[in-house]
Amino acid sequence: MSDIQEHPASIAVTLPDGSVKTVPSGSTGLDIALSIGRKLAQDALALKIDGKTVDLSAPLHHDTSVAILTFDSPEGKNVFWHSASHIMAQAIEELFPGSKFGAGPAIEQGFYYDIASEHRFRESDLRLIEEKMLEISKRDITITREEMPRDTAIAYFTDVRKDPYKVEILTETLKDVATVSVYHQDKFTDLCTGPHLSSTSKLKAVLLTNISSSYWRGDSSRENMQRIYGIAFPSEKQLKEHVAKIEEARRRDHRKLGAELELFMLTPEVGSGLPVWLPKGAIVRSELESFLKEEQRKRGYLPVYTPHIGNIELYKRSGHYPYYSDSQFPPLTYHDEDGSQEQYLLKPMNCPHHHLIYSNRIRSYRELPIRLTEFGTVYRHEQSGELNGLVRARGFTQDDSHIYCRPDQLVDEICNAIDLTQHVFSTLGFSNVQTRLSLHDPENQAKYGGTPEVWEQAEKDVREAADRMGIEYFIGIGEASFYGPKIDFIVRDALDRKWQLGTVQVDYVMPERFDLTYIGSDGQKHRPVVIHRAPFGSMERFIGVLIEHTAGNFPLWLAPVQAIVLPITEEVHDYAAEVQQALLGAGIRTEIDTRSEKVGRKIRDAELAKIPCMVVIGQKEKENGEVSLRRHRIGDAGRVGLEALIEQLKTEITGRT
Amino acid sequence: MSDIQEHPASIAVTLPDGSVKTVPSGSTGLDIALSIGRKLAQDALALKIDGKTVDLSAPLHHDTSVAILTFDSPEGKNVFWHSASHIMAQAIEELFPGSKFGAGPAIEQGFYYDIASEHRFRESDLRLIEEKMLEISKRDITITREEMPRDTAIAYFTDVRKDPYKVEILTETLKDVATVSVYHQDKFTDLCTGPHLSSTSKLKAVLLTNISSSYWRGDSSRENMQRIYGIAFPSEKQLKEHVAKIEEARRRDHRKLGAELELFMLTPEVGSGLPVWLPKGAIVRSELESFLKEEQRKRGYLPVYTPHIGNIELYKRSGHYPYYSDSQFPPLTYHDEDGSQEQYLLKPMNCPHHHLIYSNRIRSYRELPIRLTEFGTVYRHEQSGELNGLVRARGFTQDDSHIYCRPDQLVDEICNAIDLTQHVFSTLGFSNVQTRLSLHDPENQAKYGGTPEVWEQAEKDVREAADRMGIEYFIGIGEASFYGPKIDFIVRDALDRKWQLGTVQVDYVMPERFDLTYIGSDGQKHRPVVIHRAPFGSMERFIGVLIEHTAGNFPLWLAPVQAIVLPITEEVHDYAAEVQQALLGAGIRTEIDTRSEKVGRKIRDAELAKIPCMVVIGQKEKENGEVSLRRHRIGDAGRVGLEALIEQLKTEITGRT
Repeated sequence: MSDIQEHPASIAVTLPDGSVKTVPSGSTGLDIALSIGRKLAQDALALKIDGKTVDLSAPLHHDTSVAILTFDSPEGKNVFWHSASHIMAQAIEELFPGSKFGAGPAIEQGFYYDIASEHRFRESDLRLIEEKMLEISKRDITITREEMPRDTAIAYFTDVRKDPYKVEILTETLKDVATVSVYHQDKFTDLCTGPHLSSTSKLKAVLLTNISSSYWRGDSSRENMQRIYGIAFPSEKQLKEHVAKIEEARRRDHRKLGAELELFMLTPEVGSGLPVWLPKGAIVRSELESFLKEEQRKRGYLPVYTPHIGNIELYKRSGHYPYYSDSQFPPLTYHDEDGSQEQYLLKPMNCPHHHLIYSNRIRSYRELPIRLTEFGTVYRHEQSGELNGLVRARGFTQDDSHIYCRPDQLVDEICNAIDLTQHVFSTLGFSNVQTRLSLHDPENQAKYGGTPEVWEQAEKDVREAADRMGIEYFIGIGEASFYGPKIDFIVRDALDRKWQLGTVQVDYVMPERFDLTYIGSDGQKHRPVVIHRAPFGSMERFIGVLIEHTAGNFPLWLAPVQAIVLPITEEVHDYAAEVQQALLGAGIRTEIDTRSEKVGRKIRDAELAKIPCMVVIGQKEKENGEVSLRRHRIGDAGRVGLEALIEQLKTEITGRT
Repeated sequence: MSDIQEHPASIAVTLPDGSVKTVPSGSTGLDIALSIGRKLAQDALALKIDGKTVDLSAPLHHDTSVAILTFDSPEGKNVFWHSASHIMAQAIEELFPGSKFGAGPAIEQGFYYDIASEHRFRESDLRLIEEKMLEISKRDITITREEMPRDTAIAYFTDVRKDPYKVEILTETLKDVATVSVYHQDKFTDLCTGPHLSSTSKLKAVLLTNISSSYWRGDSSRENMQRIYGIAFPSEKQLKEHVAKIEEARRRDHRKLGAELELFMLTPEVGSGLPVWLPKGAIVRSELESFLKEEQRKRGYLPVYTPHIGNIELYKRSGHYPYYSDSQFPPLTYHDEDGSQEQYLLKPMNCPHHHLIYSNRIRSYRELPIRLTEFGTVYRHEQSGELNGLVRARGFTQDDSHIYCRPDQLVDEICNAIDLTQHVFSTLGFSNVQTRLSLHDPENQAKYGGTPEVWEQAEKDVREAADRMGIEYFIGIGEASFYGPKIDFIVRDALDRKWQLGTVQVDYVMPERFDLTYIGSDGQKHRPVVIHRAPFGSMERFIGVLIEHTAGNFPLWLAPVQAIVLPITEEVHDYAAEVQQALLGAGIRTEIDTRSEKVGRKIRDAELAKIPCMVVIGQKEKENGEVSLRRHRIGDAGRVGLEALIEQLKTEITGRT
């Protein structure tokens, strides 16, 4: 027997479509891509073998399944942006010698690198660095991987690269690792597990976006570093599309539209992060609330109202205080006239109040499930830097419900809650919804309430409900709340950005802490299970996202002003006013534009105000008791009788289409 | 000329009906009553001459207008109960010699006296005192008035009565008065301005109700006294009626009914005075809110939502802090992560938030009036002892609106607000509504914001609006709020008790403090006027009163459960369930009673639960697709088809009849 392992002369690789290709042993990802087609070989960035991403140049010696990764896949983008961060580091090293490098990962949108440098980077430097990066790309430098013993690497980064950060990682973080990998590109070498692009030339377009500050290893007692963010693409065209998307997002920014369309205001006079709903925004919010109330009424939910404060003892009982006091407003201390003193908390959540309603009297198994629901405004501390209009606020209103049910009703009730959430999203035009089963992290059991057995049961129930509803989901380990697993709904908006909105959560812990019981058919006390659920999540956040998703073009039923009457001449003002009154009388929110402007100008202004229906009135319309309808962003919709118009609009509004 | 003033031999007295009677000079009220009729003379308690109440025995020497006061008038009751407090004092003095007496007035319902005594009064003593009072009544003691110089009175109360309290009043409170009056009845004498009954025998029935503690002159640094409350009547029958009314009030107590009908709960676990609305109460509240929202939409109000807290600077600007801090929750101090510190107040009123919305952008005279409206929950400090269920709470929701208008629109807008308030009261079945014009007290101008000129204008506007609306009102001097005069609506409930509910207030002060402006047709900045108005006042208080007014028998549109289906036998359960589903489908809140109880029992339970419609289902009903309707507190309403029933109930619900 020889101790040299023989490789077979050829191996079988299974492609994503299931077809099998026989290639010589030692073939690389690039070889395989070339054997399929030139275009694919050109686009290929890395290779996925048996689920692991590797360099395109890594030789294969065994039968395996493979996938060629291009920029179209998340993994491909990740490799691309990771290499772009190395190319940026090389460019900085060439431009500003002596710069040292901390962490430089790919992120959701692009990459960053943390830099220690005597030079203070400024906006103008970013343009220089971009140019240098494109120059490095033109140099078509091959990027190579080298594996070396850790000691060799320490010596190399100490003596050759003179990089104390990589040395620290090698001696501390990687102290139990025998062999490490480094990547070379020309004179720049970085300690890195990879994988990376095969050449710098793949990078064709780059935009460095931002400079911020960071600490080495995120530790505020360590050195301050400069972080440069950027994004890169394999073509100029893709960069242009990206920039256009950013522009569009800026145009749709809900804070900008919120002010322009007079939906809400934020002012330090009230307080940071405390949105005030202006009349037009209040209409949107109120329509959404009515919509959900109506759905909930049909589904047997019971409304309640609870105060916005609660005795602090309530939150000690729930376990929210003091453990979550970082995310709460501080307590206020109340002195009663008899000298007694109490502490109250602005309620950070509605749950404890609802649990008290449940336990207000003895409950029988026959009356379960009990579904309490409230649009409950809660207050939480968010760091100033994290505040973002409606999307991240300190005061927000949850469309909160707590469903108290028997264990044998749990899966049905989760399914009902999922169904309602899906109905809400589809009505609001979010067609791209991802679902995450947020489970606990068994390695970190101490973070959670309840026993491992309870968690096992709860997670089984959640999975069963998700399966029964036939939803595709992905698993988020460690994403559960402290009292139980959840199903989180993540929508993608019109610009393909992800937002976590609705949630359905299972809770076996609070029923214990609040000693919630029901009398079973056996006459004994039993524990109910609690489902926390909120399809919108927060009215503020949801509407913030909705504004950006629709760019402020609300569907008719939600539009603050649904119609505007536009008389062409002053002679028809009387009839125009009649039309407005008829529409108002039918409950359609209608304005009238009686300015002495040309109708073209009136239409342009109405389009800018994003009013769904323009009702144009001329002499002919007046004579025939008709109106000319024009739809926002669509255009002329023909002449109709006034009655027919009202019927048409009412149908559209009631149908919420 | 003689220095003795001659009295004419006869004088002319004008009676309330306008008729004039000539009587001898020196005639007393009793003489006049006797000249009219024996019954009146028997019932007469005091006399009103030119608006002033005097003893029935006071001789008249001049032409004057008179009215004989009986127990039917508020002034008559006042005299009666004031004398009753003297009779109680005499009884206590006889039973517990050495007792001394502080203040002993008539009050809204009865009287009290503050007593300094070594004896600790107990419930059983009250019965003894009542007996003694009736015995004193039987003794038919004449009550006589005596005027004496203050010095004589001091000597008398020091030496004869040995009463340090009356001496203190004579030497301090009355130090500038030359002559005082005392009232004698047998050995009991009291310092008193009167008037009083002519004899103790008028008192025929008495009920002492309560013992509490008080301080001499309300000053907690002075002696503790014992206060005994009571009520008395000129006949046994009236006392019985009173007791029955108290019983009825107790039966209707909204706290009792609120628990029985599961409308709301109060628990120290949340906090004193912080009502939690249970599902059934939440339905009532939500229906009332929807009703008002609909009315307001028709009348051009614009909804807004504002946070429940505000930066304390906002309240300093409005002048509410620190001047009204006694009636507010204490501020909470917020530390931001950047080390900055802010104070927030739980909002005690919604006004400042609304003013900020108004001034969010420049306003034109063309867009006024702007009517902002919000069901805004506010938090106020109320002393523990003052708390009373929903009627006096620490957290409550105002149906608050602020109307910003031009001065030339003010009277119209006040009228509109009055009209809406009247519509609300009449829809809710409050037919007995009094209106008070609450004006400022010019003697106390410092209490108020704004100049005397502004107040003059505001009060003129309020009067003009009240006159134009043709409402009868009475004036309440000193009842204005600090920023302007108000129109307050005081309803009488089914037990004839008074409740202040809705309010319409004019405000010229806040527009100054918040620098509110609009651009007039002249292109210049002008100040708008603000109307604060709330027809319900507070949802909590209104519903508390409504519960007592209706004894929990809500009209159909408000009833938490509108109908209950009562199957007579198990064979009709399927059809009964169909009926329930049909009613639910039509939006009628319907339960079903499928217990295996006799239908009589089911009807009794439904009556107890105060459910307006009982839908009884037997075999015959099932066969004909009909139902038998039974109305709460009315009885059988005949057999109708299911469709007809639904139509009938829907009409009644939409009509809010």
